[in-house]
Amino acid sequence: MTLLGDIGERELIADFRTFIRPEGRVGPGDDAAITSEGTVASTDIVTFDRHFPAGMTYEQFGWYAAAVSFSDLAAMGARPTGFLAALALPANLEAQAAYDIMSGIDQCAEFCGTGIIGGDTKRGPGIVTGTAIGVMDGRRPMLRTGAVPGDVVAVTGPLGGPAAALEAIDLGIDAEEARSTLYTPIPRVAEGMSLAESGAVSSCMDLSDGLGTALNTLCKSSGVGMDVELDFIPREEYVEDIARMSGKPVKELLLDCGGEYELLFTADRERLGKIYEAEVPFHIIGVVTEGDSPELLENGERSAISNGRY
Amino acid sequence: MTLLGDIGERELIADFRTFIRPEGRVGPGDDAAITSEGTVASTDIVTFDRHFPAGMTYEQFGWYAAAVSFSDLAAMGARPTGFLAALALPANLEAQAAYDIMSGIDQCAEFCGTGIIGGDTKRGPGIVTGTAIGVMDGRRPMLRTGAVPGDVVAVTGPLGGPAAALEAIDLGIDAEEARSTLYTPIPRVAEGMSLAESGAVSSCMDLSDGLGTALNTLCKSSGVGMDVELDFIPREEYVEDIARMSGKPVKELLLDCGGEYELLFTADRERLGKIYEAEVPFHIIGVVTEGDSPELLENGERSAISNGRY
Repeated sequence: MTLLGDIGERELIADFRTFIRPEGRVGPGDDAAITSEGTVASTDIVTFDRHFPAGMTYEQFGWYAAAVSFSDLAAMGARPTGFLAALALPANLEAQAAYDIMSGIDQCAEFCGTGIIGGDTKRGPGIVTGTAIGVMDGRRPMLRTGAVPGDVVAVTGPLGGPAAALEAIDLGIDAEEARSTLYTPIPRVAEGMSLAESGAVSSCMDLSDGLGTALNTLCKSSGVGMDVELDFIPREEYVEDIARMSGKPVKELLLDCGGEYELLFTADRERLGKIYEAEVPFHIIGVVTEGDSPELLENGERSAISNGRY
Repeated sequence: MTLLGDIGERELIADFRTFIRPEGRVGPGDDAAITSEGTVASTDIVTFDRHFPAGMTYEQFGWYAAAVSFSDLAAMGARPTGFLAALALPANLEAQAAYDIMSGIDQCAEFCGTGIIGGDTKRGPGIVTGTAIGVMDGRRPMLRTGAVPGDVVAVTGPLGGPAAALEAIDLGIDAEEARSTLYTPIPRVAEGMSLAESGAVSSCMDLSDGLGTALNTLCKSSGVGMDVELDFIPREEYVEDIARMSGKPVKELLLDCGGEYELLFTADRERLGKIYEAEVPFHIIGVVTEGDSPELLENGERSAISNGRY
């Protein structure tokens, strides 16, 4: 008898994918599904157990619960049109905490240009399942499969904040800037729409499982390799500082931690001008190669980029 | 300090509704939300704790988890275009049970003309949050607000099965037909689409909270009363039999138990022919009045219909 706990999360998801029918235009295997009628949708479970680091408020937990699904829409270039919030909360939770969670969800949905359109509530141990819904407005969705050798590899903003925040919590350091990237990640919805609109992007996904995992996923999905320059990966100064204090190499903070919500994308270098015109900030971190996996270049040394803790 | 457990489920839902913005075309207050772009969506939580009666299989639990959300789409007259399955399951669950749940969801989605397009999995106590997505194809959605005095009140099929099944379980009676209405309810998707298409329906909702509650909800939403004839409420013979064996009045089984998945609707009696033409089976159970709540007529006696156990 095999128990669910004996099966890795990845294997389970892979098995469950066999149930996902090809009738949607897109998915499985991308950040969000797209139906034949053009509805873009993504659902995510967040739990008190696993997604509630020390010091987070209920309002931030609500924001986070919504942000993870909106980020999936962002990675496709979709415009959000609604959010459904299903809350399974303990009876001994303060009522104010439940309202704070709803308020956090509401604020994140508003930031993403939409609102809560429906939901459900039941008793439970503290599980929020959010579903973000959107449309493409005629834009071609950005998938994980289109990267070709010669494309540039880029991210929309600085990384390492969530990892630095977790280290700071462990070290008892007050690192407000880092904490805000962990507690109230910004779904890059406007950036995703502009990137899709530009027509220059060949593949895209969000960084919720961390940069290392995302680079591996894009390489596998597109059947390519990548050379990534460690020095090119954008990071705030506090990430370097906290890495030093914790004694961990900065590349671990940049590559191995989930909870990042910038977008990773590849783009045709001949059409990069379209992205500059769209005024989406981005940082080139490497190039797509004819290999079959991502490699890190650090002071001229080359090493494999691991698929992360997932 | 108010705890969530001190607040009734209805009050909590009412409070949470203040967060639901009017930017959707429809909702809150209907079975499903409709975005301004025409996406119909409904999300529902089902739990091992609360929705797993004795003798139910994991496959049936999966079917049930999907059926509740598809039924919400049916009540609007929507055509389902996809289903998202978010599973929070215990590590000590047999892996086969998890596949059985997915298989049950998949079968129900296929019955409703669509499939699973995405989802998420996490560890949890046994909570499935399903989100059904659909489109109106140009049909006008059936809401809860349109009933007017003089309309007929009708249901799409026989009631009392789930209540009879629960009584039979208590009595230790094997009542297979009743059990199947409880374990594998049929979302009336095709019926809902035909009813909406007919143009004769003035209001509609599903019966998941039971007939008594649904009649009260339609009356309140539409600002009308209803006279319902107990004898007109369709029921299979086994419902009468089990009522007799359990010593409970049959009207309790017909009115007070949730888990029913037929549709309740009101229709313009001048246009009933359109519904006959559409070949949707239905049973008239009463008429809409100028009152403000539903009343039951039983052997010429009139009584209030309670808002049920919810």
